[in-house]
Amino acid sequence: MKHIENDDKYKALSVNKGVESLPSVNPYFKSRIRAKKRNLSVSEFVEGILKGDITILGQAVTLIESTLPDHYVLAQEIVEKVLPYSGNSMRIGITGVPGAGKSTSIDSFGMHLLKESNSKLAVLAIDPSSERSKGSILGDKTRMERLSIQPNVFIRPSPSAGSLGGVARKTRETIVLCEAAGFNKIFVETVGVGQSETAVHSMVDFFLLIQLAGTGDELQGIKRGIMEMADAIVINKADGNNIDKANYAASQFRNALRLFPKPESGWDPEVLTYSGYYGFGVEEIFNLIKRYEEFVKGNGYFDFKRANQAKYWMYQSIEDQLKENFYNNPEIQSLLSIKEKEILSQETSSFTAAKQVLDTYFKKQ
Amino acid sequence: MKHIENDDKYKALSVNKGVESLPSVNPYFKSRIRAKKRNLSVSEFVEGILKGDITILGQAVTLIESTLPDHYVLAQEIVEKVLPYSGNSMRIGITGVPGAGKSTSIDSFGMHLLKESNSKLAVLAIDPSSERSKGSILGDKTRMERLSIQPNVFIRPSPSAGSLGGVARKTRETIVLCEAAGFNKIFVETVGVGQSETAVHSMVDFFLLIQLAGTGDELQGIKRGIMEMADAIVINKADGNNIDKANYAASQFRNALRLFPKPESGWDPEVLTYSGYYGFGVEEIFNLIKRYEEFVKGNGYFDFKRANQAKYWMYQSIEDQLKENFYNNPEIQSLLSIKEKEILSQETSSFTAAKQVLDTYFKKQ
Repeated sequence: MKHIENDDKYKALSVNKGVESLPSVNPYFKSRIRAKKRNLSVSEFVEGILKGDITILGQAVTLIESTLPDHYVLAQEIVEKVLPYSGNSMRIGITGVPGAGKSTSIDSFGMHLLKESNSKLAVLAIDPSSERSKGSILGDKTRMERLSIQPNVFIRPSPSAGSLGGVARKTRETIVLCEAAGFNKIFVETVGVGQSETAVHSMVDFFLLIQLAGTGDELQGIKRGIMEMADAIVINKADGNNIDKANYAASQFRNALRLFPKPESGWDPEVLTYSGYYGFGVEEIFNLIKRYEEFVKGNGYFDFKRANQAKYWMYQSIEDQLKENFYNNPEIQSLLSIKEKEILSQETSSFTAAKQVLDTYFKKQ
Repeated sequence: MKHIENDDKYKALSVNKGVESLPSVNPYFKSRIRAKKRNLSVSEFVEGILKGDITILGQAVTLIESTLPDHYVLAQEIVEKVLPYSGNSMRIGITGVPGAGKSTSIDSFGMHLLKESNSKLAVLAIDPSSERSKGSILGDKTRMERLSIQPNVFIRPSPSAGSLGGVARKTRETIVLCEAAGFNKIFVETVGVGQSETAVHSMVDFFLLIQLAGTGDELQGIKRGIMEMADAIVINKADGNNIDKANYAASQFRNALRLFPKPESGWDPEVLTYSGYYGFGVEEIFNLIKRYEEFVKGNGYFDFKRANQAKYWMYQSIEDQLKENFYNNPEIQSLLSIKEKEILSQETSSFTAAKQVLDTYFKKQ
C-alpha cells in the first residue's frame, strides 16, 4: 500500500514538475521515467510517426526545434526516414495583420475541414519574432477553442525565435513529419508584417491573405508585395453592419488584382468575404481552395511548384549558411563597420569596400 | 601640303574606322593616335571627368565596362578619386514593358529637362539580357532622335550581358562618374520584365513606372511586385482617341494604389497620364518629381535612402561574390546536380542535402 502511494506520487510529479525537480528520488523510478520520456530510437520514432501517434510526433517535433547538436542529428535521421511517406496533403499558408482575426478564422476553417471524412489537420506557424514580442502566434491554444480539443488536430506554435532561415527550416521539417503521420491538411500561419510570408509562400500549395474592410489604415501593417502572392484574398468580419463595407472592400481588391499580371500558376486569384466568428462564407473559401487544387493538379503546376520548392529550400539554406559563416566572423564584423563608415563619408565606393572585405575573408579560409 | 593631306587622312580614318583597320600606316601617327586614345593616367582621367569632358567620361565608362583585370583596377581608382564629387543629381529610374514607349518618352522627358538652365542629362540603362536578345535597350540611339544630338546629354547603352550583379555594378559606377562630370539629372532605364527593376530601384531616388491603358493583357509582361516600387505610375499614349481609355486606366491604378501600404518615404505614389510622342503631360510629370524631391529632402528620406543604398550595394556585392565563389566551384556544381535529383526523388531532405554540400565546400577551403 505504501509502495503504491509512492509510485503514484512520483508519476504525478514527473508530469507536473519534471523529474529533476524532485528533492530526492528513487533512482529506479528516475531511470524508468527518463527512458519512457526520451530514449526512443530513430526507428521507434519513425514507426510511431507512421502509425500516427501524436505523442511521438510531438516529441519528434521537439527534437527538430531543439538547439542541441545531438538532437539535430537525430531529427535529421527521422526526417530522412519518413520523407518518402510525406507529401500527401494540401498545404495552406494563412497570413494577415494582427487583428485580422487569424485565430478565430483558423478555428472556423479547421472545424469546417474536419467535417470531411478522414480529415486530419495540423496547424503550424512561422513567427521569427515570437520571443521578442513575447506573444508567439498560436502560442495560446485557447484562442482556437474548438479546434484545440479535437482528436484529429495537431496544433504547434512557432518554433521559438531565431533567424528566419532557422525557424522556416524547422517548420518545413515539421510539415514532413505531420504528413508522414497522416495529416492531410496543413495550415501554416504567419503574421503579415515581416519577411516570413515569403518563407511560408515557399512551403505551401495555396496562399490565403486575410484582410479587413476599412479605410486603408488597417492595411498599413501588411508588407508590400504580399498581396501579389495571394491565391485568394478573404475579407473577414463580413457580418452584421459590416457586410456592405466588406463587399465594397472585396470589389476594390478585385479591381486591384486585375491590374496585376497573371500568376505563373495560371490561376486568377479570387476575393471572397466571410465571417470567421459566425462561420459565414467559410464553405465557399474551401470550395475555392478545392477548385484551385483541381486546377493546378490538372495543369501540372502543383507538382512543378512542389519540386521547385524542394530545390528552393536546398539553395536557400546553402545561401543562408554561406552568409552566416561570413557575417559571424568577428574580424569581418569589425572590418564591415569600418567600411560602412568609409562608404557613408564617400571615402570609398561600395564595390571597393566589398572587395576589400572579401579579400580578407578568403585569405583567412 | 602633302604632309597635311596625309595627316588629315589618318585623322579621319582613325575616327571612322579605327586606326587598326589601316592597311599600312606611318608608325609615328599610329603611336600618336594610340597615345591620345588610350594611355591616360588616372589623374588625367579624373581631371578630364571633373572638367566635364564627355570624351574622357566615355573612355572611363569603357574601362568600367571592360572585362580586363587591368582596366578593372584602373576604373576602381578613378571611381574612388571622383567619388567625393559625385552625388549632386536627381536619379530617376524608368521602367515599363517593351512597347510601353520608353524611348520616345525618355526623348520627350529629356528635351523637357534641358529647358531648365544648367541641366545636364545622362541616360543609362540596365539590361542584363542585352546580349541574349541582341536588342540592347538604348543600343540604338536613333530611337531618341532629339536627345541624341544635344550637347549636354550623355547617352550610354546597358553594359553588355553578364550577371545582373555585374551589370548593376557597372551602371552604378557610371552614375558616379557622370555626376562627377556635372550631370545633374540621371535616367536609368530598364525593361520591366526581370529582376533588374530591383537593382535599378536600389540606385535611384525616384522610380517611374510607364504603363499603357488596356484590357490587362498589356500588363502581363510587368513583373509582380514592381507596381509597389513605383513613386509614380504614368500612363503613356494619352492622346487622340486614347485619352478616355488612359484616364480610365489612371483611375483604376489610383484605386489599386490606395490598397497598398504607404511607402517608407511617406510619399503617396501618384498616377498621371501623358503622351510621350506629343509631349502632353510631360511637364506635370516633372512637377511631380520636383514635389517628390522637395518632400523627401524635407523629411530627410532622400539622404537616408542614399546612405542605405550605398550600404546595400556593399552587402549586395559581398553576397553576390560569396555565392559566385561557391557556385563556380566545379566539385560543388556536380554535387548539387546529384543532390537535386535526390531531393526530387525524396531520397534526401532539402536541408540534409544543403548540409552535405556545404560540408564539402568548407572542408576544401
